[in-house]
Amino acid sequence: MSATHRPGLLLFAHGARDPDWALPFAAVVERIRARAPALPVVLAFLEFMPPGIAEAGARLAAAGCDRVDVLPLFLGAGGHVRKDLPALLAELRSAFPQVAWRLQPAVGESATVIAAMAEVALRASTAME
Amino acid sequence: MSATHRPGLLLFAHGARDPDWALPFAAVVERIRARAPALPVVLAFLEFMPPGIAEAGARLAAAGCDRVDVLPLFLGAGGHVRKDLPALLAELRSAFPQVAWRLQPAVGESATVIAAMAEVALRASTAME
Repeated sequence: MSATHRPGLLLFAHGARDPDWALPFAAVVERIRARAPALPVVLAFLEFMPPGIAEAGARLAAAGCDRVDVLPLFLGAGGHVRKDLPALLAELRSAFPQVAWRLQPAVGESATVIAAMAEVALRASTAME
Repeated sequence: MSATHRPGLLLFAHGARDPDWALPFAAVVERIRARAPALPVVLAFLEFMPPGIAEAGARLAAAGCDRVDVLPLFLGAGGHVRKDLPALLAELRSAFPQVAWRLQPAVGESATVIAAMAEVALRASTAME
């Protein structure tokens, strides 16, 4: 990354009524923080859980980020990723024009995550009783 | 696995109206087939897309599987995984009592998938423009 940039990371998940639902997503954040302690990272939810994407984006802007990668923590790109998220991002762009908001593909579309899911499936199938 | 077992794999995803939504899930199946060509594997959906879990389970039973690992391709364990899926599995157990249906944790709860998501996030954040 360029020395003139202060990047940030906004992880966007669906959210659910059960607080335990968010544990794997919180674990992703912990792992990112362990590997990149200086990188501001915020986990936001579409519904049911705070913060929403507006609040998460405001936090990253307040932290001085001028380039934020927005990564949908979804396995497939359905309506939430293809419609809801771009609309929410348009609001962030309007509220914080000094920040470059870069929408990334859904995390489940990456070869790395696809390979990991296949690995978990094969391990389940070959496990002993 | 024991020589007396014929295992199968049932991957269970949410489904969506857009056919492209299923591409990452189909890629997981392809990768499993490439690594374990003899393992019967079927991808089933909760809604919007065929096959449902009943049809998928029937296919695996017809293929002679006597032990089927059911892996939810969900990132978090919400209502679909904690309520809908056990109810659907109870029907499969009743319809095919000769098969041991083993419900696995949601794929997103595994350390392997959590690490993969963190990896993708860090890569996005450190990528050059």
